[in-house]
Amino acid sequence: MNRPITFKIEASKNLMRAGIISTPHGVIKTPAFVVVGTKATVKALTPEMVTSLGGQTILANTYHLYLEPGDDIVSQAGGLHKFMNYSGPMFTDSGGFQVFSLGAAFGEGGVTKFAKEKDVNSSQVKKTKSEKLAQIDDDGVTFKSHIDGSLHRLTPEKSMNIQHNLGADIIFAFDECTSPTVSYEYQKEALDRTHRWARRSLEAHLKNKEASSKQGLFGIVQGGQYEDLRQESAKFLAGMDDLAGFGIGGSFSKNDLGQAIKVVTEILPETKPRHLLGIGEPEDIFLGVEAGMDTFDCVAPTRIARNGTLYTKAGKINILNNKFKTDFTKVETDCTCYTCSNYTAAYLAHLFRSHEMLGATLASVHNLHFLVSLVDNIRQSILNDNFEGYKKEFLDLYLTK
Amino acid sequence: MNRPITFKIEASKNLMRAGIISTPHGVIKTPAFVVVGTKATVKALTPEMVTSLGGQTILANTYHLYLEPGDDIVSQAGGLHKFMNYSGPMFTDSGGFQVFSLGAAFGEGGVTKFAKEKDVNSSQVKKTKSEKLAQIDDDGVTFKSHIDGSLHRLTPEKSMNIQHNLGADIIFAFDECTSPTVSYEYQKEALDRTHRWARRSLEAHLKNKEASSKQGLFGIVQGGQYEDLRQESAKFLAGMDDLAGFGIGGSFSKNDLGQAIKVVTEILPETKPRHLLGIGEPEDIFLGVEAGMDTFDCVAPTRIARNGTLYTKAGKINILNNKFKTDFTKVETDCTCYTCSNYTAAYLAHLFRSHEMLGATLASVHNLHFLVSLVDNIRQSILNDNFEGYKKEFLDLYLTK
Repeated sequence: MNRPITFKIEASKNLMRAGIISTPHGVIKTPAFVVVGTKATVKALTPEMVTSLGGQTILANTYHLYLEPGDDIVSQAGGLHKFMNYSGPMFTDSGGFQVFSLGAAFGEGGVTKFAKEKDVNSSQVKKTKSEKLAQIDDDGVTFKSHIDGSLHRLTPEKSMNIQHNLGADIIFAFDECTSPTVSYEYQKEALDRTHRWARRSLEAHLKNKEASSKQGLFGIVQGGQYEDLRQESAKFLAGMDDLAGFGIGGSFSKNDLGQAIKVVTEILPETKPRHLLGIGEPEDIFLGVEAGMDTFDCVAPTRIARNGTLYTKAGKINILNNKFKTDFTKVETDCTCYTCSNYTAAYLAHLFRSHEMLGATLASVHNLHFLVSLVDNIRQSILNDNFEGYKKEFLDLYLTK
Repeated sequence: MNRPITFKIEASKNLMRAGIISTPHGVIKTPAFVVVGTKATVKALTPEMVTSLGGQTILANTYHLYLEPGDDIVSQAGGLHKFMNYSGPMFTDSGGFQVFSLGAAFGEGGVTKFAKEKDVNSSQVKKTKSEKLAQIDDDGVTFKSHIDGSLHRLTPEKSMNIQHNLGADIIFAFDECTSPTVSYEYQKEALDRTHRWARRSLEAHLKNKEASSKQGLFGIVQGGQYEDLRQESAKFLAGMDDLAGFGIGGSFSKNDLGQAIKVVTEILPETKPRHLLGIGEPEDIFLGVEAGMDTFDCVAPTRIARNGTLYTKAGKINILNNKFKTDFTKVETDCTCYTCSNYTAAYLAHLFRSHEMLGATLASVHNLHFLVSLVDNIRQSILNDNFEGYKKEFLDLYLTK
């Protein structure tokens, strides 16, 4: 098979590495922060802004695009890249996480609610307080749209079909995303199902010759808070030669994030890239890189930006704080982003107080630039054999507050 | 006096002309469409986007900026240009229109409510249905903020002071903006007051030597629906040598717009530029240019854009119409704007249906480009002595629907 996704390591130390992922839409120099563009748009930004701020790659969400506008429409448009006017490498996730958290698979409250129901088991039809029905079975998941309550069904084959229609360079196997508080027994059952779904995802992917010549499939390691299950998952997926890489999914507590990743990356083949799904606070990225992860995606930079929260090297600030009304300096003195190069904190404060849309745009540019640059700097520190020094320097200041 | 604003006519025919307004921040080739940036931001766009789409100049609103963030803050920031990162020519209006329409000078409903109260006269304290107080007197206007209900007062001197703090190239004399349905007697009384205020505005402007060396003051012709009052107003202002140009304000009915302007422009000195305040639908711009106006501003292109309404040569369309969900062509086939160059109608439809902010940005770029290009084409048609031909060609298609 001609592999559409390849990975080359440039420097490594213990589990940590700097490398280059090659895709049909260009390369991603890793470690890298993947910008989230949920509904085929990075909220409040043009694709050119994403590229200018240093973004190398965008991840869109399968669940959202399946519901709106529909993967058939994206396919008719010529695929995600053409639809949204972005020519760089793209990821789509499997839809699994959103089905379980946004969809009604576990009723109102999604994963959070699920976390409280330890005795849940599969093939069981549940009634939630709001009398909504949802069902997981070994074949797939039936869920309600968070938009209009309509019923839908995702299976590994369906997820592959949607992701083929969307046409991202890197796609993910359909997985069951569990809460960190479920019982060992349920976690094990869900993991076995996720593994069967990974096999079915890969089969469906390879069956579509055209898609598999242009898109690479990543398997998703699950196992929740149980190290032995995480290891079992890593071993299982490591044995699937035709996977182009791996995602690590599920919830982690901040305390054991590094350890939870290490037990997995020690097992995964070194030669394939590894993506940490939905994790992207600066301190977590250092842990992830150290534990051998290559790429990270997180909605936080743009989501908190829209509320006026901005990253700075000395920690987060909220631009709505009174003091910024008359702060005619940059948000971050030595920041080279478009926002800090052209606007003061006082102007941003004015935009947010006036509910002007440009505020969200400028804050999102700054925050994404902050995260993207941070991970670029981490990459450079690995190449320079100075990761520990950079980590200490950055976190000492960032976590002071 | 060294005049900061000069005007040169390049071609003219009857009242109509093509010219160049020179300002300390560059030239405006006229006729020109002035992009509205109410609160020191063109809604949903960066200043670079305004320039790329062909925008030559931006008008910000004195009333809004006085209330938020405050002209003192804009002044401390180094003026509007620096505050909002725009280096082209700028206008600010006088605040008069907004005081009467958005402020509570006439209670809830502003000008619309006023229009129903024909017996209103000056120096009178009014109680509206909602028991709010507002007052016009010969010295100025006391009004309530539309943001927090706080009481404020604007006088000609205060309006000048605010506009000096804001620092736009072209500023406007403080005027009383009446409803088109008030009695002749009240209109005459208001007009006399507007003229006294124009004199006071000019005195206050000239008294500030630094400001008047960098900013040019336009007087505002009022007179409502009464031709003789409009003519009286034009004569009065024409006699004020130190005015840099003229605005025509107040409401017009679509039917007599051309005639209402002509009776004024026949009197105004040819050598100074003329701005039509708040008028900017394509058909009105043709009438305005023909009647001798040079510049136009209007919020319509960006306001309707945010609701998904887009200008096309064949009339307006709403992108939320079902047919656009699968329309993989441009919004306008031969449009060269950023939006049409890079995105399909189907993508815009998706953004609007998904409530994504980029939709407002892309639609605003297209609509502003449409209006700016239209007025640029009108300018070219005057230079080519083909105004009538272009007008017929454009309006025949645009008004077909």
